[in-house]
Parts: sequence; structure tokens; C-alpha cells
Amino acid sequence: MHRSFFSLPTFYRPSRRILPRMSSSVANKDRSKIIAPASRLAEGRALTPDVWSIYNVANLPADCINLGQGYMNFPPPKWVTEAAEQALNNVMANHYSHPKGRLRLREAIKTYYGPQLQRDLNAETEILVTSGANEGQYSVWTAFLEHNDEVILFEPFFDQYLPSVVFNGGKPVYVPLHPPKGSGKSTSNDWTIDNDELRRAVTPRTKMIVVNTPHNPVGKVFTRKELEAIAAVAEQFNLIVMSDEVYDQLVFDGKEHVRIATLPGMWDRTVTVGSAGKAFAATGWRVGWLIGPQSLIQPTLAASTRIVFCSNSPLQEAVAAGLEQVVQRNFFQIQRDEYAERRQILIDCFDQLGLPYTNPEGGYFILLDVSRVQIPDDYPFPESLQGRGFDFKAGWFLALEVGVSSIPVSEFYCPEHSKIGENFLRFAFCKDADTLRRAAERLQNVKRYIK
Amino acid sequence: MHRSFFSLPTFYRPSRRILPRMSSSVANKDRSKIIAPASRLAEGRALTPDVWSIYNVANLPADCINLGQGYMNFPPPKWVTEAAEQALNNVMANHYSHPKGRLRLREAIKTYYGPQLQRDLNAETEILVTSGANEGQYSVWTAFLEHNDEVILFEPFFDQYLPSVVFNGGKPVYVPLHPPKGSGKSTSNDWTIDNDELRRAVTPRTKMIVVNTPHNPVGKVFTRKELEAIAAVAEQFNLIVMSDEVYDQLVFDGKEHVRIATLPGMWDRTVTVGSAGKAFAATGWRVGWLIGPQSLIQPTLAASTRIVFCSNSPLQEAVAAGLEQVVQRNFFQIQRDEYAERRQILIDCFDQLGLPYTNPEGGYFILLDVSRVQIPDDYPFPESLQGRGFDFKAGWFLALEVGVSSIPVSEFYCPEHSKIGENFLRFAFCKDADTLRRAAERLQNVKRYIK
Repeated sequence: MHRSFFSLPTFYRPSRRILPRMSSSVANKDRSKIIAPASRLAEGRALTPDVWSIYNVANLPADCINLGQGYMNFPPPKWVTEAAEQALNNVMANHYSHPKGRLRLREAIKTYYGPQLQRDLNAETEILVTSGANEGQYSVWTAFLEHNDEVILFEPFFDQYLPSVVFNGGKPVYVPLHPPKGSGKSTSNDWTIDNDELRRAVTPRTKMIVVNTPHNPVGKVFTRKELEAIAAVAEQFNLIVMSDEVYDQLVFDGKEHVRIATLPGMWDRTVTVGSAGKAFAATGWRVGWLIGPQSLIQPTLAASTRIVFCSNSPLQEAVAAGLEQVVQRNFFQIQRDEYAERRQILIDCFDQLGLPYTNPEGGYFILLDVSRVQIPDDYPFPESLQGRGFDFKAGWFLALEVGVSSIPVSEFYCPEHSKIGENFLRFAFCKDADTLRRAAERLQNVKRYIK
Repeated sequence: MHRSFFSLPTFYRPSRRILPRMSSSVANKDRSKIIAPASRLAEGRALTPDVWSIYNVANLPADCINLGQGYMNFPPPKWVTEAAEQALNNVMANHYSHPKGRLRLREAIKTYYGPQLQRDLNAETEILVTSGANEGQYSVWTAFLEHNDEVILFEPFFDQYLPSVVFNGGKPVYVPLHPPKGSGKSTSNDWTIDNDELRRAVTPRTKMIVVNTPHNPVGKVFTRKELEAIAAVAEQFNLIVMSDEVYDQLVFDGKEHVRIATLPGMWDRTVTVGSAGKAFAATGWRVGWLIGPQSLIQPTLAASTRIVFCSNSPLQEAVAAGLEQVVQRNFFQIQRDEYAERRQILIDCFDQLGLPYTNPEGGYFILLDVSRVQIPDDYPFPESLQGRGFDFKAGWFLALEVGVSSIPVSEFYCPEHSKIGENFLRFAFCKDADTLRRAAERLQNVKRYIK
């Protein structure tokens, strides 16, 4: 997850202008010279600087080690990039794919995911390849949200959800994950949903619940029992569930990754979201997929076809080759072990520091509780941090003083709930072990600031 | 341009349902079991079978030569695919790009397009790389359309425009290009806009005019005078102009390709759209770009960042390498000459047939006037053609009887204007010369049906 730097000139004042009917001779006078962007951009908070622009590498010291943004600094497997090279030498793999995705990739998804979803998937009607998981999710919202339909998001939430829901006329409704009580060691399993809070969030306009497991940024892998409680709400109120499982290949410690689509009655209302970028260390390939019943996939295909028409062809071929070979190569297990090693480097570091952290059962982020880090009263912060939570300041302070950047977690809560997240910084461990070791070494310097 | 086959089960009845407030105990009874897709899908005609599904290869004889869909049956240049292979071997070219696009590609666009747009382009604020031109245009609509804002489209229009405008809350307003009078030879220049009709189409809700030059499917390359007339309307009513110039490298016979953004006063209100797929015979790479003033590009970046986050990285690198070398290699001129040769094969064929056609000055489509083709009264047509214009029937008839498929042009008009297009079939010549020669040979068999 990586975000751009938006700096918009001040004359953007999006507004719903009601224009008077005009005679053509005065048309130009009656309209402002600058054509304002649509109000959805401001409503979706898409025009104001976000955490990614504040913590942009350009704003941090040049030699800062970047554990903020969630992309790998290692390549996809060689046997997968070689399949991409082969595709580039195949004429038709350079031209339009079917908007559903290339048949070879849909077949590979069917073969790999079918057993996991306990279904004989129909590659024509139940699988949709998208231009990254992000565009897939966006297309689901385009396909199903009517104006003011509500979408329940668990906080902290992947921050693309908010603008994407709003751009499609929807209204996010927030239900927080509650952090573990106390200051001891904890795992992502200790972050919990209050089921009553979830039920209270449902209204007659609720259309959808977004589940994210393994969860970004908490690393939580939802238990069967937790998912059953969510499923019961979805069933009772006839809601769609979008289950964002892009980190499904990164579940550690033998923890079971339960797919909510496999719970009784849930297939018919669940879209499961996957990502080749996460599965094959190829975040820049922009290949993702949706799996679900025809009733959800076909309208989403109708949306996605208009939004992007189709996804890039040669890298779809390569991802197909990847999925075809993962079992035989035991690739996902090997990759999981590598990530577990990477995680251990940061865990050892945080143990040595003596700061509480959330040991993640999945994904590639660790939340560090920095509430005991003491920042000098007179420390100079840039103006962009004014009004932001403690975590924004702590993250900035650590980036500048110890040379490791991270991302403040309060950004992933709505303003009303941001206090819940402001003790935490998110560190990404999707980096090679050497980089993580260098970061861990630098982070030992945090000790001098711990109260 | 290629389109998918949608076959939606009959229980999709999208509707704006107003749900009664309910007690949770009866929630499920009060809601229909099937969750309907958003009404925008039906409003954007995205749920009904379109020309691409009716004329899908699966519905036509297996040995039919496909001149319907606009993708090449030849590969991108070897030196461009080699650059893609190199990128696959560069770690960071496999990971997220900046949502603006990779700097190398933005710099290459600046260098190539700057002189053509007569500006020193700012690669940070005036260029946006998109996931195909299609997603770029979609993002402009997301960024600028308020509910019920009107977008003027010239008919025949690229059929993605309609649903894309509607999905973003906009309302297409149609102004037809009028075909040449008489039955003699004509060029795409003989298809003309009635400027009074254009002016009458403007209302207080008009936000944008879409210009497409070279034009799909007519092949028209708008003259300076024609563009000046459109620019005058845009200026007078303070409208955005989206200038879809994806065929800009395919202009023949020394015709000047005028970019409307270069007309006096027009830079500030114009987004120019380009496509690597068309420029480098790589329609499946999904790399396009937008060029315009910061006031238009930055809000569009804010939209595109949420829709796709970023475009695929390795193929962006390859397209950058392509644009960097086109001048030195004289690539676009060589490619233009090849396309002119391909066009000549169909022109010679149509001349031999004695049927009128529109000689295109740009793009890779030729419109054939089939009004003199006589179809036997008792010819059996599939049900999907019921209620469609003569061109739908003629296209079907020729595909089955002579073995060459094309696309009926009335599909690119709104229902009220579809009569204007129904004498024409669109033949794509973005195919290798051998394929076109075989098609031309078969098309001689049309003679026996000419009245």
C-alpha cells in the first residue's frame, strides 16, 4: 500500500453548484472560470493530504529505512517472471483479454481456490480477474451501491475503502476492532469486535459488510467463531459480505485461515478477494481476482468492463503459470516461512526494546505500541502534523531520530474513533532480512526515549 | 475494442428500492433474497447483451475471419517487448508505481508530446498514466461529474462512453456526425457536425464535450476549422473538453492531426487522451495517459488513485522505452505506412465490389455502406437481432455467408438516432496483410447479393 502526494491548488472548492439557466450570450459570465471537481472527491477525503503524502519518502531523510509502505524490496519468483517473458513473446498475450480475465488464469484460480472454498467453481460465471484487488473491490461497489447505501467497515480499515465507497455513492459506517487491554504482549487475535456494536451499526440502508482477514494493519486472522458472528448478521439482514483476503497466503504459526464464504449459507452472499501482488511479491503487476456466486460476479463484471475494460494480459498469463505451479513447488509454504523469519527480526527487536506490540498471525505488518515513547516537548514538527494524533508525531520523531519510517495507525480510523489507534505505529516486514536487521539495529536507539 | 459476453440470469431486476425501517427479527423477510445490482448498471445499459456479445466469435462460424474487433493479430515491436523483459528483471519495476505513473514514462510522454502540444509539460502535474485510456477517461468522469451533469458525445461514439458517463452520475447528450450525402466514394472528412445542433445541445447542466479524433468508427480526423467551432462552444459555455486521441499515431495521407488542446485558450480546459495499446500494437498492456492542465489532471489523479491505485509497472517501463526510441527509429512513420497498406487491401476490395465506403483518414476502421446488399427474405436470423437495424442483419448475413465478420454501426448511436448508422458495417484493418487479403477474397462473394 503506497500513496501519492496530492497538493491541490487552493482554488479547488468542490461544490454542488446549481447553475441558473442562462442565455448563451452571458454563459461565460455566469460560470466560474475554473471547473470544480465533483463533490465526491472531497466527500471521499480524496483531496486532502493523507498519511502517505505526509510520510512520503521525499519528506523524510534520504537514508531513512522505509518500513512504512507495504511493498516488497525483493522480486517475484524467477519462474513466474520467466512466464511473463514467455507471454510477451506470444502475440495474443499482448492483446485484449476477455473482461472476465484470461481463461488460463480463471482455470488456475478455479483449480487452486476451488478446494479452499469447498466448491467446484465455475470459471465462466464465478471468477473475475481484476486490475489489482483494489479495482475489483471498487467494481463491486460500483455494481451494488445505490446512493446512501451503507457499508460497514471494521476499523482500522484499509484506507482505500473509504473514498472508494463514497465515490460510488455509499456511506461508510464504522465498527472498531478493540485493541488488547493492558500493556503486555499480545497477538492480533486479541483485537476484537464487539458483536453488539456490529448489530447496532446495521440500518435499513446497510448493503454490505467488508471483512479483511488476514487484516491490514492489525494482522488479525479472524477465527471461525468471529466469522460466524459476522455471517449471522449478514444472513439476518440480507447483506453482501466482501471478504478481502489478499494476505491469504501469509498466515503464520499454523493458524487456520477460515474463509467466510465457506460458512453455511454464506457462499451466496460473499465475494472473496485475492491478489497476485501479495501472493507472488508483485505488487506492481496489478492482477487480482474476485470469487463469488454469479449473482455477485456478473454485475461486477458489467462494472469492471466499463471501468478498465480488461486487465493486462501478459502478467495474467504469468500469474496463471504461478498458480499452476505453487502446489508442486510448495511455494506458498516456503514463502510463509520466509515471512515468519522476517517477522521474527522485528519481534526480537521490539522484545529487546521492551515495548508492547501486536504479534501478527497474518499479513506483513506489526503494530508497535509507542505510548511510552517520550518526545521532547520542544521537538519541531511540520505543520502537516498539526491536529493529528500522538502516533503521527511518534512516527515522525522515530523516522527523523532513529532513521526508520512507519505509518501511524490512527489514519485507519474515522476521526471520531481515531483515539483508539493513536498508540500504534505500523511497521511492514515485507522487506529482505538484511534491511530488517539494519532497521532493528537502528530501532534499538528508541530505548533512550522510553519513559 | 472488444467486448464481453454478458448473460445475466433473469432475476436481476435492478431497482431503487426504498426499504422500510425494520425490526431485526423480521429483517430477512422484508428484504428480497437476491441483492439487486445498483440501478446505474441498467441505466448505463450495462446489463443487456450488446453488439460484442451478439457478434462474439463463439456465435459465429469457427473459420470466420474476424474484422469486427479492433485488436491486432500481430505483436508489439520486438524492441519494446524486450524492454518489458528487462523491466521484469528489475526488482522495483515489479512493485507499485506512483499513482501518477512511473517517472520514466511521464518523462518520455513529456518529451514526445510536449512539442506536439506546443508546451513544456510538467511531468509532475500535467501528465497522468492510467490503466489504459479507458480507465483514464473513466477517472475524468469520476473526478468531474456531478449527478445529472451532461456530457456531449458525437455519434457514432465509442460505446464505452455511455455506461462510463452514466456510472458516474452523468447524462450523455448526443450530437450526430452526419454521413456523406449520395452514394459515391467518400472520405471520413465527409462526415460532418452541424454546429447549430451542437450549440442547441448545450444546457446549463453541460459539463463536458468528448471529441474523438481520429474518430472510431468513422476514421474522421477533425480539421482545424471543425475543432475551432467545438472550441468556441467550449469556451463560451466554460466546458471541459476530453479529447480522445488514442489513434493519434494512425493518421494517413499526410493529413494534419490537429490537437484541440493547442487551439487558443483551450489548454486550460482540455484533457488529451493517449494509448500505448494503439501506439505500440499492445492493446492488452493496459497503459494509457492523460495530458492536461493541473486543474484537470490533479482531481483525476485523486479519482484514479482510488479506482486502480496505480497502473502495472513493468509494461509502463516498456512503453517508456518505446516512446524514448520512436523518433530515432522513425517507428510511427513506418507503422503508419504499414497501416496504409492494410487499409488499401480493403479499399481495393470494396472498389471491386462497387459498394460505397468511407475512406478513413485515421484509425484502423473502414465503414462500408451495405444498403445495396440484398438479404433473402426468408434468411433465418437469431432472436438477438430482433428489433435491430438493417446493419445488424447485414453483418450477420455476411459473417455467415461469406465468412468475414464486422460490426454494425447503428450500435454506436443512441436509439433515437440509430437510423443514421444502419447502412454501415465497420471493418477493422489492424490485422496482418495476409489475413486482410484472405478476407478481401471472401468479400468478393458479396457481389452476388448486391442489388
